[in-house]
Amino acid sequence: MLRTLTAGESHGSALTAIVEGIPAGVTLDRAFIDRELERRQGGYGRGKRQKLETDRIFIDSGTFKGVSTGAPITLRLINNDAKLERLSEPAAPRGGHVDLAGSISYQTGIRQVLERASARETAVRVAAGALARLVLREVGITVFGYVAELGGIAAPPLSRDVAVRDASPVYTLNPEADAAIVAAIDAAREAGDTLGGVVETIVTGCPIGLGSHVQPDRRLDARLACAVMGVQAIKGVEIGLGFEAARRPGSKVMDPIRYEPEHDADDRRYGFRRPSNNAGGIEGGTSNGEPIVVRAAKKPISTLASRGPSINMATKAESPATYERSDVCAVPAASVIVENVVGFEIAAALLERFDGSSLDSLRATMAAVHALNREKLDHWAERP
Amino acid sequence: MLRTLTAGESHGSALTAIVEGIPAGVTLDRAFIDRELERRQGGYGRGKRQKLETDRIFIDSGTFKGVSTGAPITLRLINNDAKLERLSEPAAPRGGHVDLAGSISYQTGIRQVLERASARETAVRVAAGALARLVLREVGITVFGYVAELGGIAAPPLSRDVAVRDASPVYTLNPEADAAIVAAIDAAREAGDTLGGVVETIVTGCPIGLGSHVQPDRRLDARLACAVMGVQAIKGVEIGLGFEAARRPGSKVMDPIRYEPEHDADDRRYGFRRPSNNAGGIEGGTSNGEPIVVRAAKKPISTLASRGPSINMATKAESPATYERSDVCAVPAASVIVENVVGFEIAAALLERFDGSSLDSLRATMAAVHALNREKLDHWAERP
Amino acid sequence: MLRTLTAGESHGSALTAIVEGIPAGVTLDRAFIDRELERRQGGYGRGKRQKLETDRIFIDSGTFKGVSTGAPITLRLINNDAKLERLSEPAAPRGGHVDLAGSISYQTGIRQVLERASARETAVRVAAGALARLVLREVGITVFGYVAELGGIAAPPLSRDVAVRDASPVYTLNPEADAAIVAAIDAAREAGDTLGGVVETIVTGCPIGLGSHVQPDRRLDARLACAVMGVQAIKGVEIGLGFEAARRPGSKVMDPIRYEPEHDADDRRYGFRRPSNNAGGIEGGTSNGEPIVVRAAKKPISTLASRGPSINMATKAESPATYERSDVCAVPAASVIVENVVGFEIAAALLERFDGSSLDSLRATMAAVHALNREKLDHWAERP
Amino acid sequence: MLRTLTAGESHGSALTAIVEGIPAGVTLDRAFIDRELERRQGGYGRGKRQKLETDRIFIDSGTFKGVSTGAPITLRLINNDAKLERLSEPAAPRGGHVDLAGSISYQTGIRQVLERASARETAVRVAAGALARLVLREVGITVFGYVAELGGIAAPPLSRDVAVRDASPVYTLNPEADAAIVAAIDAAREAGDTLGGVVETIVTGCPIGLGSHVQPDRRLDARLACAVMGVQAIKGVEIGLGFEAARRPGSKVMDPIRYEPEHDADDRRYGFRRPSNNAGGIEGGTSNGEPIVVRAAKKPISTLASRGPSINMATKAESPATYERSDVCAVPAASVIVENVVGFEIAAALLERFDGSSLDSLRATMAAVHALNREKLDHWAERP
Repeated sequence: MLRTLTAGESHGSALTAIVEGIPAGVTLDRAFIDRELERRQGGYGRGKRQKLETDRIFIDSGTFKGVSTGAPITLRLINNDAKLERLSEPAAPRGGHVDLAGSISYQTGIRQVLERASARETAVRVAAGALARLVLREVGITVFGYVAELGGIAAPPLSRDVAVRDASPVYTLNPEADAAIVAAIDAAREAGDTLGGVVETIVTGCPIGLGSHVQPDRRLDARLACAVMGVQAIKGVEIGLGFEAARRPGSKVMDPIRYEPEHDADDRRYGFRRPSNNAGGIEGGTSNGEPIVVRAAKKPISTLASRGPSINMATKAESPATYERSDVCAVPAASVIVENVVGFEIAAALLERFDGSSLDSLRATMAAVHALNREKLDHWAERP
Repeated sequence: MLRTLTAGESHGSALTAIVEGIPAGVTLDRAFIDRELERRQGGYGRGKRQKLETDRIFIDSGTFKGVSTGAPITLRLINNDAKLERLSEPAAPRGGHVDLAGSISYQTGIRQVLERASARETAVRVAAGALARLVLREVGITVFGYVAELGGIAAPPLSRDVAVRDASPVYTLNPEADAAIVAAIDAAREAGDTLGGVVETIVTGCPIGLGSHVQPDRRLDARLACAVMGVQAIKGVEIGLGFEAARRPGSKVMDPIRYEPEHDADDRRYGFRRPSNNAGGIEGGTSNGEPIVVRAAKKPISTLASRGPSINMATKAESPATYERSDVCAVPAASVIVENVVGFEIAAALLERFDGSSLDSLRATMAAVHALNREKLDHWAERP
Repeated sequence: MLRTLTAGESHGSALTAIVEGIPAGVTLDRAFIDRELERRQGGYGRGKRQKLETDRIFIDSGTFKGVSTGAPITLRLINNDAKLERLSEPAAPRGGHVDLAGSISYQTGIRQVLERASARETAVRVAAGALARLVLREVGITVFGYVAELGGIAAPPLSRDVAVRDASPVYTLNPEADAAIVAAIDAAREAGDTLGGVVETIVTGCPIGLGSHVQPDRRLDARLACAVMGVQAIKGVEIGLGFEAARRPGSKVMDPIRYEPEHDADDRRYGFRRPSNNAGGIEGGTSNGEPIVVRAAKKPISTLASRGPSINMATKAESPATYERSDVCAVPAASVIVENVVGFEIAAALLERFDGSSLDSLRATMAAVHALNREKLDHWAERP
Repeated sequence: MLRTLTAGESHGSALTAIVEGIPAGVTLDRAFIDRELERRQGGYGRGKRQKLETDRIFIDSGTFKGVSTGAPITLRLINNDAKLERLSEPAAPRGGHVDLAGSISYQTGIRQVLERASARETAVRVAAGALARLVLREVGITVFGYVAELGGIAAPPLSRDVAVRDASPVYTLNPEADAAIVAAIDAAREAGDTLGGVVETIVTGCPIGLGSHVQPDRRLDARLACAVMGVQAIKGVEIGLGFEAARRPGSKVMDPIRYEPEHDADDRRYGFRRPSNNAGGIEGGTSNGEPIVVRAAKKPISTLASRGPSINMATKAESPATYERSDVCAVPAASVIVENVVGFEIAAALLERFDGSSLDSLRATMAAVHALNREKLDHWAERP
């Protein structure tokens, strides 16, 4: 069982997450977590805030001599720009933000809700996801995210090369598209406008059988959708073909099943192979051994330098929306956030099925189930 | 707190759901539930099974003299076609279904997993959603679903007239598109193929402040995404503009905020009005009083009369996938399922915030919060 | 993950439970479940109702050819005495029951709440627990309950012989005490009064490591306390020595740790033995391999034939409490209920740690962890 | 919805809790929290550690200008004695602690598990409970804990005077018993032994209708039992009469119901009064308006200066258990811990029923339900 709560405001003293359920025995590679935090702060189109913060993770519990103990792990990020108590109340709520609905709902000022709703919170969620990925890494599961489209400019992947992504100013796998994207961001900045995009995450190495068909809330795709739609500014989620699946005939969507005995010993798929992966690695709510593919639509940031139409809350008169310091484009960051949020959910599904007391025990129970599956497949006809 | 578990197999004796958290005092309008069940069974493109079943709801608990008592409500649907024990084991798993991954995961035959994974289960989920909507109906919240696209043929709504939808053979709001859609279904049947589509649900009358920005898993959009992606064959979920939001500049996505005092007494929005609703009624994970708009992509049914490529599990030799009796197109049904699943989640969010002990108490606490919000808005400047 | 919801009223048409998480591959031994139901209905001191009902379990889902499939299992008990709609509203609420607080809370009549609050509900909870114990039985974990005290008459166990308990009219392990207990029940009946008692459940064969110290709500003792206190009429729960532990010095409570290599291969304790078991098998919220001992105090039934003082709700005038048909003593039944409720929780803790997809997988992962623990113990000094 | 996760080790850098669900608008009275922390550290019989720590709460999130915002609140306690990385591995596990079972379960050394299992964790749980009680205090609910028995010496309350308790070296309400208790603690210290005791918590002012009879896990007594048994070293929990109820006839347990119109306007009980409160304020899992009474048995600390029998884990040879610095008696502390843990659960039940968005909204919805209940009671005969 892996679970977490996060806390913290955009300009409060610190962001905190408690993550419970990380197995004992995992080397807590802070450099890996810091690298993900750094990537979250990067990408062309970010504003001044990112220069103020250089996120470094503090681990306050759950560790002994640099190794996890099975106890809850406290992740803490200190805000350099911790000026919350000095910030003023916005006069005019921004459309697209929680400003209006949240301040009515909680009966507070706008400041109180925007500070918590801010995407700054995703920093500690990235840290929690990166922490969970330390577990995945130990058992051969990789999670990889990139930008697939930005500001309406498609950047179909030309490879799955991490170095290509990391060299891209906008985290694509398509160097040919990057210049146009950068230009679009510059143009948006000029116009006081913002840009959104589409990000994709691919998980490889998952064993067959994460998630389940037996109850709606145990379906892996449902859980991934919840986690990804729960990220600030995400307005759509797709698994595999997604909406494109709705447009094709069934014969062009259904992934054939093949058996390639020569690959049987290779990986966790027992020789079963699919020539296509339209399902995105999940059938009937269950991981099927193929790469899990999750795509998310990030809307452009609703805070506009040009300030959209709004009203003054005290007088109800028309007024441009308050401007809070913000980015022109945070799609590259969103690719990092979604990648790590997906990683967290995959780890949660893994640890729900296998014994997560210690890393050794996780490995041992995964191996035991794998061996049993293999034996059962060899004696298929004897199934009840 | 509203929660449910469902149970039952496609050809088992019965489907059952226990729904806990329906307030006392709700008249259990079985005709409403049965009507939704009937709609789920309808729509052009369904197969022979739907003719065998005429779903009628049995309510086995939680009621006294036709009114809910606050106790858990048992919903039961009897399967006419309850031949599970006589059914044979499929020789070749169907791609796109849980057949392969599920039988490996649970170490059973294919029959055991496909029977539970079947979309037949959605019948009782529709019943649970329709039950929850009886509560919504009492407090002025309506949920409305329709088909927006089918087999790649767009059917943009020409109205929001229930009668139009109910007169359409494929549950669209666009009579002009229906003939082409029906023809496409016929063509698919001829070809031994299947069709998918896009369905949309609109919720009106929600008070401001369902869901919350304070923690990812409390965001209303995240919960809706979980519920909708948890429906069989759904591969994508959008809120409001969805993926289209990723392609527009922020100035074309952000919904301006207006104040129209003349409408102040009209509804639950205190006079706040948005000229557009690109956010789909949810900002910062919180309902903002505008209609909530959820769209879902349903893939075509993976069971093909033409039988896709697969393997014989016992011999591992190539073999066409087993054919189980199925529909050519279940997109109209999906519109009913998603509508009711969304209704359930909205009711859950409502009952999490307001007192769900009895219907009167729900109304009283909603009214109390409304009055308080109004008073607070009138004294905005005094907010802390 | 094992979870359940129950539903149903005392005089409704049926009681239902959906139990999700039973592994595939478990032979659904209905005779075992029916035997527990029969035991629940038995014991000296029961009233007329038990003669009207002869509970037999119906399994409506989650099974194929008599074996579990991993899908949710629906348990259903039909009430012979299903006269709910003809029952009248009690005029005067009974102290000790939910009558007053519940009818105020739910704003219903008293009938609506007492029907759900009735201990009749425990019938289906016993069925759910017995179902879960089918899993425990397959992996060598036994659960055993008996009456330890009744009406203030102690019946300390003279053995742990099931046959002795089953031969006792009041389910004790002390034939010498039975006559006095039966006489006390007769005397109570004469007086229009009722009797309570203390029941004990012992779980043997649990592996070390169910539950956890890492978070309060994961402690096995906390979960057992929740489940047992959640049984109707239970007012106290103890683990091991319980309240007696509060009265002894630490040196008389702490269980010494011994190592007896000759027993190393015997069971799940790796040769570790405790000469005493004052902790009741749980240290730090974690099972330690010794028998788990849970004791519960059942108050006497609050419905008195002699009718306690109350008021007429309509007039508020003094009035004897309404009498609903009831038992003089249900302590033997309580021993069965607690036994099965404890069994359910133990199974839940087991399936949270080990893979519960199938019974074979449960066994394989338990064996893998056992082997790993053994290896680690043999190399203790190498622990980090 | 109120929920929390705690984290931190006994000698780690800090203890942390994230508490989500505190309404907006609550003045965060740190002095109140610090006072509870100070009380937890006090009481006759504590060891040297308490002198090293002077717990002061840091609030890292969820606050603006000293008032809660509705966002998660981070509570942090810094350990002065943060020497975890310098501590050695205990050679011989202590009976009664998680040492043996936990290090097998998590496959770590003993140090890793004992640090998290330590009762030091309760400091931050007290802080979380005290925080929740700030909400209760605002709506007229009080929580009060004291020591009822220590080392087998009964200290029946002679009053409910906070000043008496606070003046007692061992937190009793019985100054006559204190000297004997202090002497017993001294004697235990001399003997290298430890003492346990019984603590009681009383909650007054609860509205009728917290918790519910409709499902076992929603019963208020079940939740309280879970929370209290989840406290380190607690081995028994009672509500109201507890085990004594099992020994009396029903006529001496059932609390009569009276109506005293002269008190109708006084409080939250609508004039209903019970001359006795054997039920401890909870009937059918629901608060009934009477004081809620919870009693817990705390075993003596298992760490003995005289070192109990154990084994050396590396050699398996007999060895006295390792001694970790500890207290002779922590029963007064336990009274504070249970008091605050109970407070947290009561607040959770309150916020599950009423709107916890803001303190004003909590008050408004409580008032709305109260008014509705009153009206319904005045028209009782019209109930359905």
